[in-house]
Amino acid sequence: MTQNNQWILRERPQGALDARHLELRRVERPLPADGEVLVRNLYVLVPPAMRLWMNAQDSYVPAQPLGQTMMGITLGIVEASNDPALPVGTHVNGMGGCQEWFTAPAAQLMALAPHPEVPLAAYRSVLDVQGLTAWAGLHEVCRPQPGQTLVVTAAAGSVGSLVCQLGAQMGLHVVGIAGGADKCRWLRDDCGIAATIDYKADDVGARLDALCPRGIDRVFENVGGPVLDLLLERINDGARIALCGMVASYNGGGTQSAQALMRLVTKAARIEGFLVRDHFHRYAEVAAQLQALLLEGRLKYRIDILDGLAQLPLALDNLFHGRNQGVQLLRLAPERGG
Amino acid sequence: MTQNNQWILRERPQGALDARHLELRRVERPLPADGEVLVRNLYVLVPPAMRLWMNAQDSYVPAQPLGQTMMGITLGIVEASNDPALPVGTHVNGMGGCQEWFTAPAAQLMALAPHPEVPLAAYRSVLDVQGLTAWAGLHEVCRPQPGQTLVVTAAAGSVGSLVCQLGAQMGLHVVGIAGGADKCRWLRDDCGIAATIDYKADDVGARLDALCPRGIDRVFENVGGPVLDLLLERINDGARIALCGMVASYNGGGTQSAQALMRLVTKAARIEGFLVRDHFHRYAEVAAQLQALLLEGRLKYRIDILDGLAQLPLALDNLFHGRNQGVQLLRLAPERGG
Repeated sequence: MTQNNQWILRERPQGALDARHLELRRVERPLPADGEVLVRNLYVLVPPAMRLWMNAQDSYVPAQPLGQTMMGITLGIVEASNDPALPVGTHVNGMGGCQEWFTAPAAQLMALAPHPEVPLAAYRSVLDVQGLTAWAGLHEVCRPQPGQTLVVTAAAGSVGSLVCQLGAQMGLHVVGIAGGADKCRWLRDDCGIAATIDYKADDVGARLDALCPRGIDRVFENVGGPVLDLLLERINDGARIALCGMVASYNGGGTQSAQALMRLVTKAARIEGFLVRDHFHRYAEVAAQLQALLLEGRLKYRIDILDGLAQLPLALDNLFHGRNQGVQLLRLAPERGG
Repeated sequence: MTQNNQWILRERPQGALDARHLELRRVERPLPADGEVLVRNLYVLVPPAMRLWMNAQDSYVPAQPLGQTMMGITLGIVEASNDPALPVGTHVNGMGGCQEWFTAPAAQLMALAPHPEVPLAAYRSVLDVQGLTAWAGLHEVCRPQPGQTLVVTAAAGSVGSLVCQLGAQMGLHVVGIAGGADKCRWLRDDCGIAATIDYKADDVGARLDALCPRGIDRVFENVGGPVLDLLLERINDGARIALCGMVASYNGGGTQSAQALMRLVTKAARIEGFLVRDHFHRYAEVAAQLQALLLEGRLKYRIDILDGLAQLPLALDNLFHGRNQGVQLLRLAPERGG
């Protein structure tokens, strides 16, 4: 077996992604050069931002080039090594692409030391970008005071569910907005978030009024669209909205009400976008905190795994239709000991 | 003459204001009670926010009650006094309403000490709320670094023109967006702002690209609407947008592109609304700074005066059609010495 399957971006989607935009191709498996390692990808993360990377305009990373291996955030295992810093069998996080195998200089990869009681996939989700995003958005951008009301959108999602739990643990009144009774039930029964809103079934404005009798002080926003307008209409003086994403707009189009945004002025409030990139200096500390919470059973999470590289389009489609349950990962090969 | 003319809000406008919403009525002139003074209004400020006050929903002030004297920001002169702190002849700023006369406790008014070389009207405009708004939005919200690019909308307006000049004085590359060749010419020739965009005639996006070759670091935003979308599409990492107002939305409707707002995430940027209310503790210091600049001829401003209380609807109409030239004031009586 010396082959490598990989997705390439064939055409830039204008709206929703479909079959013609991505192509699965088979190429030769690469050989590691001096100072490089050969990694077999075990997991590829499928975040909503992957859709943004496909646009012609640079996002927080340069635009994905056409005809090239689709960028991918991966967890893999070193299978051949020309650098003693990363011996064969080491688990590594990296930007390994949407493919089965890749080579990279050892310095571009991060060696993991997985805890035996924590699933390996957690190191490419809750204990990685999602966890740091939740932590940074809450503590560095929202900066809430205990007793304040925090509303989280995509609250059952990979980041939102962590924000809800970390917020509740610091004494906030947390209201989670998610799509569907199942997601709301999981938030209530497993994550301990009593106040939930099912945006697919509930009158969101009326539920917000009922669940936020003292108004909204902080928002952790993942979605945008009409729900954000409803939130803006209910913010308190000095409110802060941490803008993590606006998934509702990723496939194009979408507007926000200018009158709702005008509430930023009349409430001297702010919307602040942020990137986990700017918070990586806190990574080790935050990952250790979160792993301790996991081991104590105080932080619930869900990982939605699809088996096989070929499932990338389905994974993206599930994501944009809210059919995933937690962090969306592709599993390319079975886990095994390091 | 013991009468008092005053505007009352008869009906709440849904969209644009028209004749049926406001009514000019004649009532008895009030008498000052113990500890009160009787003030004759000389100037009433007509800010765009006056339209917001008329909405049923509270803005940064409680909603204007129906059937009551329309709220107004005034400069007047004490004509009768039951408080030795404010003798007859003192000029006072206050919330005197859209009317010719009012009474108030002395403590609710601010005594002025007008400089003989500064027009009295400046104390209800450039040296007051407009000046403090410009100063606070620039220094406390935008917080720019010398050399950065600052774009100002409604740049020939009462606040925007001050922001442009204060920004240029601190070494920013200032680009002013205003409506019409006259306003742009005034900014260039009188205020020394070389880079201007006439949003009514120019291709705003193309002009921004030409005038902001290094992107946009800071925005002082008064307008909202499509121009804000164009600005968001050009912001740099860590950009800050001080949101002073969104005049384009005050008459209802209006949207912002969700994709443009998503740039807040990918650029880790923020939109921050602010109210001059939160900066009044700097008032004395800032007013003194600005008065010194005025006296040195280093701060240009325009005041657009309409004579007579009856001109309020015209003043508002001019404002929302960009026909005013600088701060819009109504003059109710001739100035005279204090």
